[in-house]
Amino acid sequence: MNVAHAAPVLLTALSDFPLVRPGDDLAELVAAAVGHSGLLPADGDVLVIAQKVVSKAEGRIVELASVTPSARAIAVAAAVQKDPRLVELILSESRRIVRQRPNVLIVEHRLGFVMANAGVDQSNVGPADGVERALLLPEDPDRSAEALRACLQRKFGVRIAVIINDSFGRAWRRGTVGVALGAAGLPALLDKRGDPDLFGRTLQATMIGYADEVAAAASMVQGQADEGLPVVLVRGLRWSAPTLPASALIRPEAEDMFR
Amino acid sequence: MNVAHAAPVLLTALSDFPLVRPGDDLAELVAAAVGHSGLLPADGDVLVIAQKVVSKAEGRIVELASVTPSARAIAVAAAVQKDPRLVELILSESRRIVRQRPNVLIVEHRLGFVMANAGVDQSNVGPADGVERALLLPEDPDRSAEALRACLQRKFGVRIAVIINDSFGRAWRRGTVGVALGAAGLPALLDKRGDPDLFGRTLQATMIGYADEVAAAASMVQGQADEGLPVVLVRGLRWSAPTLPASALIRPEAEDMFR
Repeated sequence: MNVAHAAPVLLTALSDFPLVRPGDDLAELVAAAVGHSGLLPADGDVLVIAQKVVSKAEGRIVELASVTPSARAIAVAAAVQKDPRLVELILSESRRIVRQRPNVLIVEHRLGFVMANAGVDQSNVGPADGVERALLLPEDPDRSAEALRACLQRKFGVRIAVIINDSFGRAWRRGTVGVALGAAGLPALLDKRGDPDLFGRTLQATMIGYADEVAAAASMVQGQADEGLPVVLVRGLRWSAPTLPASALIRPEAEDMFR
Repeated sequence: MNVAHAAPVLLTALSDFPLVRPGDDLAELVAAAVGHSGLLPADGDVLVIAQKVVSKAEGRIVELASVTPSARAIAVAAAVQKDPRLVELILSESRRIVRQRPNVLIVEHRLGFVMANAGVDQSNVGPADGVERALLLPEDPDRSAEALRACLQRKFGVRIAVIINDSFGRAWRRGTVGVALGAAGLPALLDKRGDPDLFGRTLQATMIGYADEVAAAASMVQGQADEGLPVVLVRGLRWSAPTLPASALIRPEAEDMFR
């Protein structure tokens, strides 16, 4: 067994997190918010940070007026009834279109995520100055998570893990759920194949999307329409499996039966 | 905003939960485990209960020796390299096969879940007496959740919610995550369409699989190879949206682009 709990796990959304702007030192902001929360960082804490604030700090904001849509983007935009400039951004972040329908554009993101709109989002990008902006996913969320983890560990002096989470739709279920775009310092995927069950029967094919479960747990307390609670401290998780980045959660194309 | 938190959310897996047998009074066992935990039930607590113990208490155990596979089950079993009796059970619990491959049989369960093996499982069914058994999903998990909720509310004298969770694979991501098969007393799906964002921009298409996020959070602490921690008490969640059962999380076929 790789994970077990009797002691409680505590999820604390850090309150009063400031609005993040391009170039902000996000690790510094997170450390300050942890300080304000009154929680003393402890070995094994996991900080789950919303993709939006990571993208903003990394300056992944594009003004739509600066985008010139290609002929392909214009054609796709007409079919899906979206702004051609937004579609241009989506296609530039994607390897291919997986499904398209009016109001729906599901793509394979350049990092392998199968997701709506390549994660390009116009909500909560602000400020409300009439300039239309869109926010792209971080360049490399696993690398961002690792960098945040290194900075925060130096500041805190304890071993922590970092997850960058986003909300994804699902093929056969309604509603989005939190998933891990990036992870550092914990096993994003737990491989339990070959472990015995309670009665000695070998488990057949059990891999657990552990970082996705942590990301969903954090999402449950982040609130979705509000950027005010983008950081959640998760305390009390224990694992013994090897560390794996969130890229381990992406199903390889050879295994995919639905693309 | 329907959900927000500054106060922490606490996830406690109830320890020393007994092995469940057909006919057991599961509400009584859960109430006893809550009692042993030292936690006093409070308004708004959510009890997440693993599907396996609900199925066992409801007697959804089948001895494979009692199953006579149909010609279709024998043919499918040969293609997917599974026991024809197990495939017979899977097909009898399903509306249709969605994908099949050696070692993979993804179906639409009679309740609409698109899932592997219709949830029919041979692990942890015990006892280790050489008799091969399989466990089916509850007949109606939303009804089971509502019945457990009614019993537990009577015992506790407070308003609680109940989720019955299971672990599902995903089309494009590796590893399983917890999902809500059944739910009572909370909004399984949160519809935030039309809410304003931080900067006054109307959110376009945000529905949140809230009960799935709670189910994943519980799964994170349940441990997957061990039946010893099937019940998790979640304390501190707050919601103001209307109650919806877990069936609201099933994407209607008309919306489905991947079946």
